[in-house]
Amino acid sequence: MSQVSADAVTLDFLKEARETVRTSPLGVIRTPMIPWSRTTLPPSAGCSVQLKLENMQRTGSFKIRGVANQFARRPRGGRFVTVSAGNYGKSFAFASKHYGSKGKVVMPETAPESRAVLIQSFGVEVERVPTSSLMTAVNRCVQDDNMTFLHSFDDLDLIAGHASLGLELLEEAPDPDVVVVCCGGGGLLAGVAAAIKLSGCDKTRIYGVEPEGACTMYKSFIEKKPVGMDVKSIAAGLAPPFAGRLPFELCQRYVEQIVLVSDDEMKAAVSALYGAGLVVEPSGSATFAALLHGRIPDLEGREVVCVLSGGNIGKDELADFPD
Amino acid sequence: MSQVSADAVTLDFLKEARETVRTSPLGVIRTPMIPWSRTTLPPSAGCSVQLKLENMQRTGSFKIRGVANQFARRPRGGRFVTVSAGNYGKSFAFASKHYGSKGKVVMPETAPESRAVLIQSFGVEVERVPTSSLMTAVNRCVQDDNMTFLHSFDDLDLIAGHASLGLELLEEAPDPDVVVVCCGGGGLLAGVAAAIKLSGCDKTRIYGVEPEGACTMYKSFIEKKPVGMDVKSIAAGLAPPFAGRLPFELCQRYVEQIVLVSDDEMKAAVSALYGAGLVVEPSGSATFAALLHGRIPDLEGREVVCVLSGGNIGKDELADFPD
Repeated sequence: MSQVSADAVTLDFLKEARETVRTSPLGVIRTPMIPWSRTTLPPSAGCSVQLKLENMQRTGSFKIRGVANQFARRPRGGRFVTVSAGNYGKSFAFASKHYGSKGKVVMPETAPESRAVLIQSFGVEVERVPTSSLMTAVNRCVQDDNMTFLHSFDDLDLIAGHASLGLELLEEAPDPDVVVVCCGGGGLLAGVAAAIKLSGCDKTRIYGVEPEGACTMYKSFIEKKPVGMDVKSIAAGLAPPFAGRLPFELCQRYVEQIVLVSDDEMKAAVSALYGAGLVVEPSGSATFAALLHGRIPDLEGREVVCVLSGGNIGKDELADFPD
Repeated sequence: MSQVSADAVTLDFLKEARETVRTSPLGVIRTPMIPWSRTTLPPSAGCSVQLKLENMQRTGSFKIRGVANQFARRPRGGRFVTVSAGNYGKSFAFASKHYGSKGKVVMPETAPESRAVLIQSFGVEVERVPTSSLMTAVNRCVQDDNMTFLHSFDDLDLIAGHASLGLELLEEAPDPDVVVVCCGGGGLLAGVAAAIKLSGCDKTRIYGVEPEGACTMYKSFIEKKPVGMDVKSIAAGLAPPFAGRLPFELCQRYVEQIVLVSDDEMKAAVSALYGAGLVVEPSGSATFAALLHGRIPDLEGREVVCVLSGGNIGKDELADFPD
């Protein structure tokens, strides 16, 4: 876990990371941002909404942004270990292959076999253990095998890499009234919020969206410290069992409020986005669900940016979603 | 079938239709156009490509553009009949409901039951007949029931409505080197090609893409007259049994060449687009398949626009496509 303070996150630091991400050999994509009105999506409560299509990002999610900066700032040929059941693991594996790093992803036994196969296809080792043993397995890799742990959300370089999404969206929407970002461990939300606020958008309200069944940041805001909980959500990418410490500090400083959506709301959002021509996974649709269900206050006449964070959902998985 | 000549299609006529489409109460969408480089799609042979996302269009395909102009130029409260197994029928039904028209869609027995249910959900009657009896059924509706036949591709107003897509893309790519459009009966291709050429883009090369198993326009170009054939293709929207007369005349005048793709190439294109975050049906992916498989000549350094014409593919249907 990161020991650095939120003060380490300066605009210059984020701009440097953005340049690293932009020029990364991993081919990070400057994703399209499209007006909601150019889709068949239901009308959005009297405001103008732009959708930032991070579902079109390399590896299918925003995670590659943070990973690009993490790998660029670690020694070449290092040996890295991480914990992930999904999108971070995919980006980590993609980067490991590119950089020729030896890597290992520790996965919970409950994660789908297909994700393990995908990660292994990049030449990265997968160790499947019970959820309660995840950190034990990581610590053994660090101590016995001399591997370096890369955190999937609570890491300064990762957060700075994710912040590139915030700086990028400001180039198309220079001073938005509202920005809506999903929140799992909080790395993306923290990075984007810091980028926007440090860029001088004092009046921009930034909202984080969590699943009702995995609302660690929501609870952390109430308890004024990062807390954990037993999580249960269809949105695996938004359901780590605790909020990150550095993400929490940054979110507390820069985020207006955390709002919650249900699994059924995310499922319906996935289907609505599919019907509008976009492949978006449940985690990626949480922001859209929040807008659709009126969870974001005071939208009338506002300029809103809604980040769709990822599109990694198998064709077979989609069949279970409502029409 | 239309009896008008290609000379009736003037720039003023198309501009008027574009205005009708733009202000249509049917809510026709000015669809997004995004750079190919902002997706994870495979690299495109040394050229810059823009994707025109007509899969995000109202009713899920470009057909609503032509239908909007057809209905606007017919008497309100008319009684219309058409033949369609898919996208045109959906747009026709959507418009019929909106305008309060009595409508009937004659469908081949072979069309999926789900399409009939969808069309009926708009309050439009469906008559399912053997493919060989389609026009007999239509003629009975016209003669006995005094209904007006609306053609799904060979109709001046329809083609002029589709041309709005061409005028629209020129606003973002004012003088493209190459434009790639799919071709079924030829209505979209004819309209877009006429719009672009009549707007003064003399050097723009416009290519039509047909399935190998339903290449009526390709054969018509060779025989120098509109011909029919026994069709068989996964791309139902590109497989009417003959090329339209007016579309043929316009295509002969304005289109560079017709190129062909196989069903497997379209399937692979659907999957690649899905992986990049876009829901596109097989007919809609034909243009992308043509680019991917080198069917369009002389692309090096060119500015290319690729129209993705529709996204009507059920989640259940996708499961059969390769990963």
